[in-house]
Amino acid sequence: MEVNIYLTLFYYHNVKDIYVDKIQVIREFLKEKIGEKHAVLGISSGIDSSLVLTLLATSIDRNKIKAIFMPDKYTKQDDYEDIKKLSDSTGLDIITINIENVFESYRALLNTSDKKLEGNIRSRIRANILYYHANLLGGLVIGTTNRTEYLLGYYTKYGDGACDIEPIEDVFKTDVWKIASILKVPQSIIDKKPSAGLWENQYDEDELKMDYHEIDKILSDIFDNHTLNGKYEKLMELYLKSMHKRELPKAMN
Amino acid sequence: MEVNIYLTLFYYHNVKDIYVDKIQVIREFLKEKIGEKHAVLGISSGIDSSLVLTLLATSIDRNKIKAIFMPDKYTKQDDYEDIKKLSDSTGLDIITINIENVFESYRALLNTSDKKLEGNIRSRIRANILYYHANLLGGLVIGTTNRTEYLLGYYTKYGDGACDIEPIEDVFKTDVWKIASILKVPQSIIDKKPSAGLWENQYDEDELKMDYHEIDKILSDIFDNHTLNGKYEKLMELYLKSMHKRELPKAMN
Repeated sequence: MEVNIYLTLFYYHNVKDIYVDKIQVIREFLKEKIGEKHAVLGISSGIDSSLVLTLLATSIDRNKIKAIFMPDKYTKQDDYEDIKKLSDSTGLDIITINIENVFESYRALLNTSDKKLEGNIRSRIRANILYYHANLLGGLVIGTTNRTEYLLGYYTKYGDGACDIEPIEDVFKTDVWKIASILKVPQSIIDKKPSAGLWENQYDEDELKMDYHEIDKILSDIFDNHTLNGKYEKLMELYLKSMHKRELPKAMN
Repeated sequence: MEVNIYLTLFYYHNVKDIYVDKIQVIREFLKEKIGEKHAVLGISSGIDSSLVLTLLATSIDRNKIKAIFMPDKYTKQDDYEDIKKLSDSTGLDIITINIENVFESYRALLNTSDKKLEGNIRSRIRANILYYHANLLGGLVIGTTNRTEYLLGYYTKYGDGACDIEPIEDVFKTDVWKIASILKVPQSIIDKKPSAGLWENQYDEDELKMDYHEIDKILSDIFDNHTLNGKYEKLMELYLKSMHKRELPKAMN
């Protein structure tokens, strides 16, 4: 019994160390890639962007961080409150730019009524606004795509995929939760049901029809251990179908 | 004298053959990469997009080509007329979507007044509209960046640079003129002063402060012959400064 407790503590200690090391590596990456430039990033009130902001806050000059929250009609009251909490926890200003009017101007032009297509337009409007600020400040847009999303292509090409550096592209969603917890990201953000927020009641795990713990286990088996286990077919299909999102435009040579 | 004439004819014949071969290679590339999918592309009334449309028209199923002209307040009457001529010469419909209202909705939000920043917003609005149609049709966005622009980074990242395939990325601007001439792209488009059209009286060669013949000679010396000649410093500087546009977002690994 006593041995078991020590083993558990020993295990916990080492696992936690892995994440503490990872945090340090990400901070060095941010410092090196951003240097003296400005960092511009979109904050959704979800855990990925909240974690990246929290990491940035202790990695580079705080005066050079431009965090932008871009709500629309799907944004909930809780999200606004979480933005306030994140601003408090990081000590950083987060500016708000509502994109609904811009979206409406596209909708008037395109006569769209498909929620997925509209979601992509919203994501690309946000990218355009982030790049406006990055161009204005001579800064970099910091991406917030995690490894799970990256491998599954679960993001909008040239939308939230549009950025200059991707600090958590090699961090699985389940590890994002662990690191966010260590760094004391506000608990309501950690506990929030993952959503891209591109339409009403859109939830990642409903769309993917699998929970993130299962997904990450299978993806880690495939891409780290090179073995196929569990319901891998569907995930491999998503990976292969989205290959173009992880590559440059095809050209001749 | 007679010998000289034959030499000239022989030379002309072979040079022309090079371009005819190139046209064939680009057509095969388009066929292979697009397959049965739709091809969506933005037509500016400039020579690059006009050439790509002309190449597409004889490469893939004509019913699967969606050509979109996206004028704004800077678009000239001549441009509208050239679009009509291009539609006649290719026998393809070109639909018109004016982006000025969408641009105004961004401007209301961002309070911008810098012509370069605004130009980038316009370019990214066009990308968003092209991707809406590509997503709607399950098609590919066809890029129109030529090799000169590509090497100098003379395009908007995630704006006109946003596409799925780049059929003329290895064709210098001066060769675009030659190929367009062989393919009988309307003469007024070939003769038009090159412009990205992102603000009033924006002309490529004024901005670059060098003419395209000189630029392409220097770039070809650098990237094909690996020698440094002429005013290469400025062009190398543009090449190096824009490296990030030719790469994926930086990530760890």
